[in-house]
Amino acid sequence: MRDDVILYGARTGNCLRVAIALEELGIAYRTAALDLRAGEQRTPAFLSLNPLGKVPVLQVRSPGNSSLVIAQSNAILLYLAKRAGGTLLSLEEDVYSPLALERFLFFVTDVIAPNHASFFLRSEGCDEGCRLMEQRSLDALLASEGFLENARFMAGQSFTLADIAAATIVAALSSSIDWMVHPRLRRWFACVMARPGVKRGMTAFD
Amino acid sequence: MRDDVILYGARTGNCLRVAIALEELGIAYRTAALDLRAGEQRTPAFLSLNPLGKVPVLQVRSPGNSSLVIAQSNAILLYLAKRAGGTLLSLEEDVYSPLALERFLFFVTDVIAPNHASFFLRSEGCDEGCRLMEQRSLDALLASEGFLENARFMAGQSFTLADIAAATIVAALSSSIDWMVHPRLRRWFACVMARPGVKRGMTAFD
Ligand SMILES: N[C@@H](CCC(=O)N[C@@H](CS)C(=O)NCC(=O)O)C(=O)O
Ligand SMILES: N[C@@H](CCC(=O)N[C@@H](CS)C(=O)NCC(=O)O)C(=O)O
Repeated sequence: MRDDVILYGARTGNCLRVAIALEELGIAYRTAALDLRAGEQRTPAFLSLNPLGKVPVLQVRSPGNSSLVIAQSNAILLYLAKRAGGTLLSLEEDVYSPLALERFLFFVTDVIAPNHASFFLRSEGCDEGCRLMEQRSLDALLASEGFLENARFMAGQSFTLADIAAATIVAALSSSIDWMVHPRLRRWFACVMARPGVKRGMTAFD
Repeated sequence: MRDDVILYGARTGNCLRVAIALEELGIAYRTAALDLRAGEQRTPAFLSLNPLGKVPVLQVRSPGNSSLVIAQSNAILLYLAKRAGGTLLSLEEDVYSPLALERFLFFVTDVIAPNHASFFLRSEGCDEGCRLMEQRSLDALLASEGFLENARFMAGQSFTLADIAAATIVAALSSSIDWMVHPRLRRWFACVMARPGVKRGMTAFD
């Protein structure tokens, strides 16, 4: 009997990145979609899984064992990569590539976090702040063109968590990118979006 | 001969967290202080270490081997925890505690990142955005009172990366916290700040 893996989430970048990792690693899972506007993340049942009332949450029920529950998209990504023997963290030679970690966290803290801030500021009606944070996110993102100089992927020749972290945010900011002056980013994006695992992950909550 | 470990940085939370981890793990290192206002992070020599021109950067020179250079405070923290056999990621029973990862990334993305956003918005003269992001950071931080309900530390009975991530940001927001209504956070903060490794790390760039 294999583990029963459930991804609680919605159609947001944080959740889709986890779905992409599950797909890329070939881990069988099912989704449990929450309607965030209806407040389904604040039902007692869901709060017993994550007291903070946020998605994504991954639940792994092992036969006989008590179940593991883990929140925070990036913690889930690191957990899955480790569970799979480091696949999504490795380059050809290394088991855990420090560069993959570094680039992964660059996208998490320098691109995605400012984007989340801009999203929050918009919801609060602070348009100037929203615009400033969106630009900050985009500026950092465009710096990743340099990562691709001699590399197919964000941290070298293998697809890693760094590419997963980048995928949904590049998709989200796609219309703000001047693709003509970012040929490497364009090539990378086309290549990543064509991966079957990424395609399936991107539509996991459709 | 042992590794020569150099931490390039300045007196900022991102750099101090790495210093704390080095101290807590008992890794011998030296600091190389950069004057960020004078732009020392943009000298050709430093850009050859980190083309993005940001601190912290950790350089590990192994005798005979080529040196490892790693940027991104959180990648360095994860790398050091792993290098040390997972010490700062483990609870008593587990080798890698998913909870330690989860809580670590909670502080990184939900507390520290909004705080960085507020800092940036202030530097851009966007006071309303600054205030909104500071409040968001503080609200998330105060939720950590719940993590300490039956636990000495942020992810259980052991000191982990989650505590390191929390330490400098709690110190920075200290005057905004109503300590009387957060007794667990107060107890945790006193206990963490009294650790010799934390004390030494906090002053690494003084
Ligand atoms: N840092 C967290 C953020 C989690 C988060 O904010 N999730 C959002 C959706 S992307 C959510 O659950 N929002 C509903 C709410 O806040 O009520 C992560 O990476 O998982
Ligand atoms: N996400 C990065 C952020 C690095 C960062 O922004 N470092 C600041 C100091 S805390 C810096 O080097 N600023 C100088 C500059 O941007 O020129 C990390 O966690 O290391």
